[in-house]
Amino acid sequence: MAKFLQDVLVVDFTRVLAGPFCTMTLADLGARVLKIEPPGGDEARGMGPFKNGQSLYFASINRGKESVVLDLKTDAGREAARALAGRADVLVENYRPGTMDRLGLGYESLAEFNPRLIYASLSGFGQTGPYRDRGAYDVIVQAMSGMMGITGQLHGPPTRVGASIGDLIPALYMVGGIMGALFERSQTGQGCRLDVAMMDSVFALTENALARYWLTEQNPAPLGNRHPAIAPFSTFATGDGTIVIACGNDSLWQRLCDCLEIPEGLDDPRFVDNQQRTENAEALAEFLEIRLAHRGTDDWLERLLTAGIPAAKVNRMSDLASDPHLRSRNMVREIEQEGIGRMLTPGSPIKSNRSDDDIGAVAPALGADTGRVLEELMERSGSAGADGDD
Amino acid sequence: MAKFLQDVLVVDFTRVLAGPFCTMTLADLGARVLKIEPPGGDEARGMGPFKNGQSLYFASINRGKESVVLDLKTDAGREAARALAGRADVLVENYRPGTMDRLGLGYESLAEFNPRLIYASLSGFGQTGPYRDRGAYDVIVQAMSGMMGITGQLHGPPTRVGASIGDLIPALYMVGGIMGALFERSQTGQGCRLDVAMMDSVFALTENALARYWLTEQNPAPLGNRHPAIAPFSTFATGDGTIVIACGNDSLWQRLCDCLEIPEGLDDPRFVDNQQRTENAEALAEFLEIRLAHRGTDDWLERLLTAGIPAAKVNRMSDLASDPHLRSRNMVREIEQEGIGRMLTPGSPIKSNRSDDDIGAVAPALGADTGRVLEELMERSGSAGADGDD
Repeated sequence: MAKFLQDVLVVDFTRVLAGPFCTMTLADLGARVLKIEPPGGDEARGMGPFKNGQSLYFASINRGKESVVLDLKTDAGREAARALAGRADVLVENYRPGTMDRLGLGYESLAEFNPRLIYASLSGFGQTGPYRDRGAYDVIVQAMSGMMGITGQLHGPPTRVGASIGDLIPALYMVGGIMGALFERSQTGQGCRLDVAMMDSVFALTENALARYWLTEQNPAPLGNRHPAIAPFSTFATGDGTIVIACGNDSLWQRLCDCLEIPEGLDDPRFVDNQQRTENAEALAEFLEIRLAHRGTDDWLERLLTAGIPAAKVNRMSDLASDPHLRSRNMVREIEQEGIGRMLTPGSPIKSNRSDDDIGAVAPALGADTGRVLEELMERSGSAGADGDD
Repeated sequence: MAKFLQDVLVVDFTRVLAGPFCTMTLADLGARVLKIEPPGGDEARGMGPFKNGQSLYFASINRGKESVVLDLKTDAGREAARALAGRADVLVENYRPGTMDRLGLGYESLAEFNPRLIYASLSGFGQTGPYRDRGAYDVIVQAMSGMMGITGQLHGPPTRVGASIGDLIPALYMVGGIMGALFERSQTGQGCRLDVAMMDSVFALTENALARYWLTEQNPAPLGNRHPAIAPFSTFATGDGTIVIACGNDSLWQRLCDCLEIPEGLDDPRFVDNQQRTENAEALAEFLEIRLAHRGTDDWLERLLTAGIPAAKVNRMSDLASDPHLRSRNMVREIEQEGIGRMLTPGSPIKSNRSDDDIGAVAPALGADTGRVLEELMERSGSAGADGDD
């Protein structure tokens, strides 16, 4: 089967996480991604966990790319980079604002000789604004965007989301931006500049917290595992662990009281509708947990799912590695990575009948493709001229 | 300025959150979105917080759309829905798998008379696999995907991310999928089916947790605000509150010891490189906090930022509402919503020189556009024939 981006050439100047995750997603969708690395390699190659001295961190976000080593501190390196950008459809970079300009690889300079180029800049705070020059890491962005301030146990401290969503969410927004720009270019022939900031992106995902503040003049605070406006919708203690139950409407609530054999819940004025249940969420949890204590999580889970009530247990990675549903959806992939051997990694979640979900199995060794790519480039330069447009 | 999706027509059968957030993002990028609602309206109209009986929850995820009421329980309603789908570029739905088929609005049936249609299905677990028919809510997905199991305080319970990322992340993946499909269609003329699952999508964002489990056979667990492989990279107590400091490399670590005037940190074997600092993260936090206790957060923040060290405070929504950077990037938008008045909402994080970041100011009143849209449809049917293709 084909892929959505099968004829798209991406020149990738990104390092570490946000940029590489973005270009990996493009590679998963079929783009050819040339990862430009300095002679010492992307610093992610030095980040753990390691096996046989190889970084699984790097391997998990660089599959399906080609590695081209260019020393951008030299004229020859910058010239080769410009030549690659000249024939690329998309350039992605996540340096601090201004760095690419200083290297002679800024947007204006490249757009002049490749007007079809989509030039995508990912950064902590964007190409404009007072925080533009600040450094950003995931935890900085989670804190500044408001996400940390609404995550955590009730009355507990603000809590970092355990995955680096400060990088991954802007990467997904940039994937959308790049695809939108490719679509627009297919209509107009014109490339463009894209500017996606980590802080903007995570802030955009804080849901209606800003509206709640605006309405109440109270800052939304960590609520534990509860939802601010739906109940029950949380984790609850069982006889031997924890279960998640979510009832988004009264009919599910009725079904829950039936399934748990607690009909008195239906008559209790504190639980009569979703608004009452949300306001009395702590009492609701106590009420449910008295009953839930009588059986273990697996037993309740089977009963609740049979009754059609959304419920779950809190999966660990060991559960997910063998989860039959994720396996059936090609979401747990075993790849053979040079130097590491077999490893597990999540697959691509964009499934389509016109773009297969195969993933490029391996992340490249440093510079593995330098010679071949530069040779190919010279050949094409010879036949296609210097403007890089085709 | 133009927008990336300015001539794209989206027929939107989505409810509540994942689907509406996806189509809002398409609307932000210029698509015309016809929100098809049942006579009682999207159930999100009944979800709090409320002002003057109007849902801010609904308003925050439905800006820039038109509302068309169709009763899909009637032949006439389904016929109108089919006619709209016949001339749409994109259809988005987030019913449980099988529901659209039962309504005569399934993919095969619509693709037959509109082969250019991009038919996008968002669901809890996808259109295939053993969990296909289960109900899903955000907290179910956060628990099942592994995200909850790696989020929380050290030795504390698994913790829900405070925003509904179980809905919002798949929405972003679907935005990418739809744009990719639009691009591919611009090359081939063919529409397609898209299938994005909430569980797949959040699992894909658990970073290298799966690889870490694979390597160590230990399940990654909540680490508090720390990073599993970088230190310092967390929140730390100051004299009057909390500060976030992140040093991704040794040169930033050296600068941090200079700025805090704790040169002994540089000679301490426990802190000699990132790997040592990560292994001794608790000792590192104690070491830093002894010094940080001498001043308040604002004072340290100014010193650290001046020294070029990534640092931040944990923002609340009140900070973000007036944040000069977000304001300068058009990320805090004041909109005038009918029935609510002025409200604040995050803007669009995809910035480009060829697609402006204006957002459609208001979410529509229920059915506000039904008459006009159906009339327009009839007119075009008269002139363009019944196949809906143009």
